[in-house]
Amino acid sequence: MKIRFTKMQGAGNDFVVLDETQGRLGLSAAQYRFLADRHFGVGADQILTVRPSPGEGIDFEYVIHNADGGEVEQCGNGARCFARFVHDRGLSGKDTIRVQTKSGVIAPRLTGDGRVTVDMGRPEFDPAKVPFDTTGLTPVQQGSGQKWPVALEEYASGASVLVAVASMGNPHAVQLVDNVDTAPVAQTGPLIERHARFPQRVNAGYLQIVDRSHVRLRVFERGAGETLACGTGACAAVASGIRLGLLDPEVQVDTRGGRLTIAWSGQEADSVFMTGPATTVFEGQIDIPDTLV
Amino acid sequence: MKIRFTKMQGAGNDFVVLDETQGRLGLSAAQYRFLADRHFGVGADQILTVRPSPGEGIDFEYVIHNADGGEVEQCGNGARCFARFVHDRGLSGKDTIRVQTKSGVIAPRLTGDGRVTVDMGRPEFDPAKVPFDTTGLTPVQQGSGQKWPVALEEYASGASVLVAVASMGNPHAVQLVDNVDTAPVAQTGPLIERHARFPQRVNAGYLQIVDRSHVRLRVFERGAGETLACGTGACAAVASGIRLGLLDPEVQVDTRGGRLTIAWSGQEADSVFMTGPATTVFEGQIDIPDTLV
Repeated sequence: MKIRFTKMQGAGNDFVVLDETQGRLGLSAAQYRFLADRHFGVGADQILTVRPSPGEGIDFEYVIHNADGGEVEQCGNGARCFARFVHDRGLSGKDTIRVQTKSGVIAPRLTGDGRVTVDMGRPEFDPAKVPFDTTGLTPVQQGSGQKWPVALEEYASGASVLVAVASMGNPHAVQLVDNVDTAPVAQTGPLIERHARFPQRVNAGYLQIVDRSHVRLRVFERGAGETLACGTGACAAVASGIRLGLLDPEVQVDTRGGRLTIAWSGQEADSVFMTGPATTVFEGQIDIPDTLV
Repeated sequence: MKIRFTKMQGAGNDFVVLDETQGRLGLSAAQYRFLADRHFGVGADQILTVRPSPGEGIDFEYVIHNADGGEVEQCGNGARCFARFVHDRGLSGKDTIRVQTKSGVIAPRLTGDGRVTVDMGRPEFDPAKVPFDTTGLTPVQQGSGQKWPVALEEYASGASVLVAVASMGNPHAVQLVDNVDTAPVAQTGPLIERHARFPQRVNAGYLQIVDRSHVRLRVFERGAGETLACGTGACAAVASGIRLGLLDPEVQVDTRGGRLTIAWSGQEADSVFMTGPATTVFEGQIDIPDTLV
């Protein structure tokens, strides 16, 4: 089956985007895996498929398939690419586009400078909801001379590390570092990811605060290793920093894949907003083997 | 600048193929790097650019750029993709296509079953020409009960390993293993690659002999780590096995990226021939930033 596709990326997180607004392609999990394969297919972190409105007041629906062929929840980088895609192809003339995702309806908004702003939902700091087992842990007090709230003990060879723990729909443990370039991400990331206090594992963030409105961030993602840019990781790190009084309500976050802007009021009932780039890389046409079923 | 390209792969070694038969695109090293980038560009191991005949009796010329933007010598997987490309696009009606490469004129030949055969040149076993420093080494005698000829001593923590050493234009040290699936490629590959007896470093091959005409192979490539399929590595491993009387003159080689067929007469003056797949994955069009110069 010959299909057309668009390759896009947002801060280095890359997507094969498929247009199913005129009809379903009916791809199998194996065919999604083929598309995501970087040597034998197109190559992408994920496949984002755009579908027509599923109901009143909603402009579109999209689904995201991972490189393993399974469907996953929405991600901020994908939402930005979606908005750029329907705008650039003339599928929508709106600046704010309401779209049904597996995680609910979201409304990415095109900004004047070509970037896209996405409501990433509200941050969750309740350990039980992260989930994060705090049995026997004493939170570090602010103003105690220690800058970060929870000591994650003896996660490897007796060492311990101070982390802030938050959920943005997925769990994050963020530590402060002096310099992200020299942070031991490859060494400690896998240890933190599988620390026994996180029953669903955790994304490990390494945050360098340049000043109150500018940080640098690397994230070791649960199940994926270090990635170029983790949208929820940027939100969790900045929201934690704002909550602790270290950051202003709007912060530029430099990741290995590009710059994101994270904004949060500091009120736990309010959403975190992420603004970032979304770029069409190329257009293509591929013959997907029908034997992949 | 908007350009058209074809994405191809041969045994998992993948190429962006550019058609410059109608005129040069004039890409900079930074633009080649952009094309090869798997997140921000098209993504490929290498960029293969097809150009018109440089002289009488030669059908085409091609150049290959690595993912770092530099020009490299020809490789067997690229030669196969080249032949499929000019055939499938109707640029040549011949079965055997003579082409100028950085390493000289070669003549890949399309086979009836859709694969391509490439003359990979003759194997070189003279240690001085590999280059391989044998000072103080005693070759293991065939029939001595040890199956492989040279003991590479103490390359790590006192351990030693028997390797056959050969060059196919680049140096290879091949060891026999019982099972490639459990071979410690990631652990010992980097140690062999930089062993002091190889002044230009070496590709480390791990060869499992299934029977006299069927082997399995993994290769830790110099400067690249383990790859899906190393054409010269397959030639070096099979030629070494034939030379030692362990393999027939034609051998199927299963690599992680697919099956290659290697044929060699056993005469050192004769070339090794490699036959393997070459597949068009997709066609695309990309806007290359002019700022990349």
